[in-house]
Amino acid sequence: MSETRPTIEVCFTPALFQHIMTPAPYIVVVVDILRATTSICTAMANGVKEVIPVASREDALRFKEHGYLIAAEKDGIKLDFADFGNSPTSFMGPDVKGKSIVYYTTNGTHTIRLASGSNPVVIASFLNLKTVAKWLSEQHQNVVILCSGWKHKFNLEDSIFAGALALELSETYKLNPHCDSANAAIDLWKTAAANPLGYIEKAMHRERLKRLQLDDILEYSFKADQTKVVPLFDGFHITDALKPSL
Amino acid sequence: MSETRPTIEVCFTPALFQHIMTPAPYIVVVVDILRATTSICTAMANGVKEVIPVASREDALRFKEHGYLIAAEKDGIKLDFADFGNSPTSFMGPDVKGKSIVYYTTNGTHTIRLASGSNPVVIASFLNLKTVAKWLSEQHQNVVILCSGWKHKFNLEDSIFAGALALELSETYKLNPHCDSANAAIDLWKTAAANPLGYIEKAMHRERLKRLQLDDILEYSFKADQTKVVPLFDGFHITDALKPSL
Repeated sequence: MSETRPTIEVCFTPALFQHIMTPAPYIVVVVDILRATTSICTAMANGVKEVIPVASREDALRFKEHGYLIAAEKDGIKLDFADFGNSPTSFMGPDVKGKSIVYYTTNGTHTIRLASGSNPVVIASFLNLKTVAKWLSEQHQNVVILCSGWKHKFNLEDSIFAGALALELSETYKLNPHCDSANAAIDLWKTAAANPLGYIEKAMHRERLKRLQLDDILEYSFKADQTKVVPLFDGFHITDALKPSL
Repeated sequence: MSETRPTIEVCFTPALFQHIMTPAPYIVVVVDILRATTSICTAMANGVKEVIPVASREDALRFKEHGYLIAAEKDGIKLDFADFGNSPTSFMGPDVKGKSIVYYTTNGTHTIRLASGSNPVVIASFLNLKTVAKWLSEQHQNVVILCSGWKHKFNLEDSIFAGALALELSETYKLNPHCDSANAAIDLWKTAAANPLGYIEKAMHRERLKRLQLDDILEYSFKADQTKVVPLFDGFHITDALKPSL
């Protein structure tokens, strides 16, 4: 049985994605807890029709000229031409329901675009942890969990989430966490699980958010299983795989 | 006080070295527990005069033609022209005392050469953990612990060692582990500390060594504080910083 179980690989930063060892086909799970993937799950849960992640400020501007709603930030600061920044709270109001949102962030959208190619890309956060795990188990494919990190570097919040997801996939659905980084992520999650938010107090990024007075969404970002969405990126836009397409 | 303490950064693989955030000057500590840095510490402890790490098989061959002793392996297998492979046991006998050894390995020597530049590079393993920590504390400089990993990927054995060294530097000598990866490494080490060898049973690399029937040196490689050496690389060769130069 062990040979046929789908595998789980964890990639701690986008800079390591080119070195993954999982043979294709596989599904890539993109993680950027603070905040892109938390925001995208929030958007889907609040009825946003689609999120279009773009790779540059210039691309976002071009969509703006065509009348799209723009969510865009650089280093945590909302860009001047954007309708909102990348706080999940921006994606909660009734004004986003049914809308298309173009999304540009320092890390997260870059990672989503990097991951896309011939492989399906899903968006995960604590908010949809169990829903994504169940959906992944039903695909019967190998899984690569790709952490956005921070400016190519390892970060704690994405890594403990990768561990939480890897643990759920291995314990509940018997996927095989066969690489060192998956095992390390699981052990970090076990250290953090009793109090993820307390654990993350240690993270650089938390200090950065504090300085920017943006830490109002921390508690929200570490709440597991708040939404039943599976945001799926097809190379152009992100829609909820669990919703029948319109 | 906190601003003036030297910092500790951990870099989980050479692929991430270009993204470190520690400002120069800093000292790089290279780690390749299985097996380059364990072997180099063993060599120094057994009176080897110098170890010359080379970046390619061709470089090693060139030194061979000039009469040097060659230790060389590729993917764990001794190269045919080499005098020995890279097992620490090769560096223990009386025949190496006072000798110069040219050293080429899949991962470790590549990492040592990558790390060298304007920054001092020291070689660490469990064997010289406390000695290296004390020496580092006396330099009053920032420290970057650079793990060799395995083919650009994260590995557990180098990462838990990085955590053990970071913990010693922060607890005993009050250096500041200010990045997420240093904190994660410390937590992984705390998970592993009671039984590092048992913990490492999970590592991919251990399975690889088992297949190659090379795991006779595992127990040796995880024994802390066996030697009082500080192998220092000056861009050409590695000598013991604690020994007066001859």
